[in-house]
Amino acid sequence: MSAYLDEVFPQVRGMFGIDTLEDDRVVMRLHADERHLRPGGTVSGPAMFSLADVAAYVATMARIGPEALTVTTHCSIDFMRKPVSGRDLLAEARLLKLGKTLSVTDVLLYSEGVAEPVAHASLTYAIPPRRDA
Amino acid sequence: MSAYLDEVFPQVRGMFGIDTLEDDRVVMRLHADERHLRPGGTVSGPAMFSLADVAAYVATMARIGPEALTVTTHCSIDFMRKPVSGRDLLAEARLLKLGKTLSVTDVLLYSEGVAEPVAHASLTYAIPPRRDA
Amino acid sequence: MSAYLDEVFPQVRGMFGIDTLEDDRVVMRLHADERHLRPGGTVSGPAMFSLADVAAYVATMARIGPEALTVTTHCSIDFMRKPVSGRDLLAEARLLKLGKTLSVTDVLLYSEGVAEPVAHASLTYAIPPRRDA
Amino acid sequence: MSAYLDEVFPQVRGMFGIDTLEDDRVVMRLHADERHLRPGGTVSGPAMFSLADVAAYVATMARIGPEALTVTTHCSIDFMRKPVSGRDLLAEARLLKLGKTLSVTDVLLYSEGVAEPVAHASLTYAIPPRRDA
Repeated sequence: MSAYLDEVFPQVRGMFGIDTLEDDRVVMRLHADERHLRPGGTVSGPAMFSLADVAAYVATMARIGPEALTVTTHCSIDFMRKPVSGRDLLAEARLLKLGKTLSVTDVLLYSEGVAEPVAHASLTYAIPPRRDA
Repeated sequence: MSAYLDEVFPQVRGMFGIDTLEDDRVVMRLHADERHLRPGGTVSGPAMFSLADVAAYVATMARIGPEALTVTTHCSIDFMRKPVSGRDLLAEARLLKLGKTLSVTDVLLYSEGVAEPVAHASLTYAIPPRRDA
Repeated sequence: MSAYLDEVFPQVRGMFGIDTLEDDRVVMRLHADERHLRPGGTVSGPAMFSLADVAAYVATMARIGPEALTVTTHCSIDFMRKPVSGRDLLAEARLLKLGKTLSVTDVLLYSEGVAEPVAHASLTYAIPPRRDA
Repeated sequence: MSAYLDEVFPQVRGMFGIDTLEDDRVVMRLHADERHLRPGGTVSGPAMFSLADVAAYVATMARIGPEALTVTTHCSIDFMRKPVSGRDLLAEARLLKLGKTLSVTDVLLYSEGVAEPVAHASLTYAIPPRRDA
């Protein structure tokens, strides 16, 4: 899956890691990295969005198999706390629904080692019709 | 305002331009740029999120003055169409509410020269209490 | 369309009126009514949600024709100001996207005669596959 | 708390019950009731919104004490499955953030006795400044 991600998201190669990959639960990691920092050393909103987005993508792929055409159609994200400076950011994604044409995934983001979430997102992916159907 | 943005968002220096800056309407531009492309040559979701976020930030700043501590607390975004490859992306932001503790901004994203929007977002910014109050 | 609404939403018969019904813009009205008031005489959040929901439904129906099976899959709503007591509530809905499997509608809610919106919503409707296709 | 709810939400008296009331987790119940049904016997979207809204309200009240002025500022809700006809609807609410000026609550809605959620919501409540502060 990591190799597949590097291929589908070449612009973020090496940015994300997969900690856990289960049937309906995925944990991904955004490596602390200078490029995504805001003044003050915390992770930027767009970087948090990216992590939530890729985690929801992987949670969906884990069930339907690689489908590069799958696209995000909606994201609702609450930024609740400032990420801890210098720590990796973890995303815990749970697939809430896998339908024929869309998936819905709940994602909580944490600074590694901190109990309280920094952000909470819900993402919808559109799933293309099966071409072999 | 452009110089201020470069200072507050150093990681995206030069990425965004301001086309229009009015009292409750801002148009910003994301320069077509290899770094933000997905396979197929279109702008990535995170880059669209970034553009909506910075446009809502500028729409809020245009009214309250520079406040670097202002933070995004919520974003809801619908990705509706694929951006046109190679075109700049424009964000038209309208401030719907400016309260004492938060602002709400509506943002429509377009590929330059195309009438139908590629994405639609609503963003909430938390405004810090006035320190001189 | 009004008669059709009464049939599809029998539980809200008479609650809503259609002021304007154009190709991609619909204005609907929630009649001021004791049943939907909160303490203090303003319209309740659920009543505002209902109005936004039915306006997005009508905006979609206006384009695809009556489809009772069409269902709301997502709503994101910002409550920005207190509605004015005793006034009807108006919803201005614009269809932002009409795809094969979903529609996206932007809705602004106003107290009649007041310029500043009380709420802003974005709704997604899932459109069932054509049975005659 | 039930008596308090009847006072604050007189228009829905008797509609909701509280199953569980813990420090950061609340379970509420929407009694199956003819008034909220859509054609086909399922619970309507607005009734689901109401249940999520009141559950988030109670989850916030459980921590800060009764504050009738607390208002919903945002709700993002995904409707994922059709509720089961004739069953009560349960809402499991978890307070994700309690700040000085706002709370964020995650809510999952279930048909009683069914494992898969029918809807998922995130709600933000604005908390008024302490008058005795």
